[in-house]
Amino acid sequence: MKKGIFITMEGPDGAGKTTQIELLRDWLEEQDYEVILTREPGGTRISEDVRRIILNPDYKEMDAMTELLLYTAARAQLVAEVIGPAIESGKAVISDRFIDSTVVYQGIARGLGIERVYEINAHAIGPYMPDVTFLLDLSAEEGLRRKKAQAELDRMEAEGLEFHRLVAEGYRSLADRNPKRIKKVDATLPKEVICDMIKGEVRSCMEP
Amino acid sequence: MKKGIFITMEGPDGAGKTTQIELLRDWLEEQDYEVILTREPGGTRISEDVRRIILNPDYKEMDAMTELLLYTAARAQLVAEVIGPAIESGKAVISDRFIDSTVVYQGIARGLGIERVYEINAHAIGPYMPDVTFLLDLSAEEGLRRKKAQAELDRMEAEGLEFHRLVAEGYRSLADRNPKRIKKVDATLPKEVICDMIKGEVRSCMEP
Repeated sequence: MKKGIFITMEGPDGAGKTTQIELLRDWLEEQDYEVILTREPGGTRISEDVRRIILNPDYKEMDAMTELLLYTAARAQLVAEVIGPAIESGKAVISDRFIDSTVVYQGIARGLGIERVYEINAHAIGPYMPDVTFLLDLSAEEGLRRKKAQAELDRMEAEGLEFHRLVAEGYRSLADRNPKRIKKVDATLPKEVICDMIKGEVRSCMEP
Repeated sequence: MKKGIFITMEGPDGAGKTTQIELLRDWLEEQDYEVILTREPGGTRISEDVRRIILNPDYKEMDAMTELLLYTAARAQLVAEVIGPAIESGKAVISDRFIDSTVVYQGIARGLGIERVYEINAHAIGPYMPDVTFLLDLSAEEGLRRKKAQAELDRMEAEGLEFHRLVAEGYRSLADRNPKRIKKVDATLPKEVICDMIKGEVRSCMEP
């Protein structure tokens, strides 16, 4: 049986994660992988129900720790129900956001601390850390500009420029500290160029 | 200013927690306390929304770790929004269930481990451990018998006798290990007798 492969796509809103995920999915299917796409928070009916709470723009009183625990709860269910079984049966999983989002948004931008995020998340993730993670790197200003066309922003998107600057900076420092797993890609490059870089990295993760 | 006091009521479903909470509230008000009643999971609009997910009898696929994290998320919000501010302003808080429920239901009965529950919950509770906790001790059989009259059971109540036996046993061993904080009371005693025992213990927690 093929070895499963777990790929995550990270970066600020508006960086083009969805486009790259679809291009990568098509290519992985050409390589004979069964591909599972998922997103966070969400990806199971329980996790999507938790997502609805997390992103509700009405819940302005939400405590940062509550937010961290809800993201982690949604992740635990996604790993148990989808990611773990898919990897164990040799599939390729591409997740739109995963642990690194929580490290950056809650650990860094909300100030809860990176170590605390890892410690709590270890219980939810178990052995299923991503094999490779792509950071579509984009400045906070450019990310917000790309999102501005949207009619309604969710609770996280509605945060101000300062928050999104912390996110962009946080992602970069995380990539610098994990160069083996996290590959930083300039999100302003043409999508075909980005896609080629991603395919090259994923190829080197596959079995010979 | 009066020192706040934090009291939690624990025990299996059907043990009479609601009755004792109401009797204790009346008595604390006579002692000039402003009393805040709350319940877990719930007690804030976000926590009640999380409760709806946790107890949904439809969600039979819920992973035990997801369950633990959702309970802890609901608790983080309750502590941040209600319990912390109330205690800091000298009020008495009585909560129908708190950390010990999670230790017993998820740590012991679901088998996730007591240490894991404490470790994750420390982030949600901070300094707000209960001053005194009453365990209304009841056998699993008697608890289920008392609940049987109910039309519809939630996801936790719908667990079988074996699960509820682990809960009853878990509560007893927890009380044995924390004799200073957790006071075990025979729930089959007349409610006035139980109430007098509870008042006596609470009195000894108050400032002289």
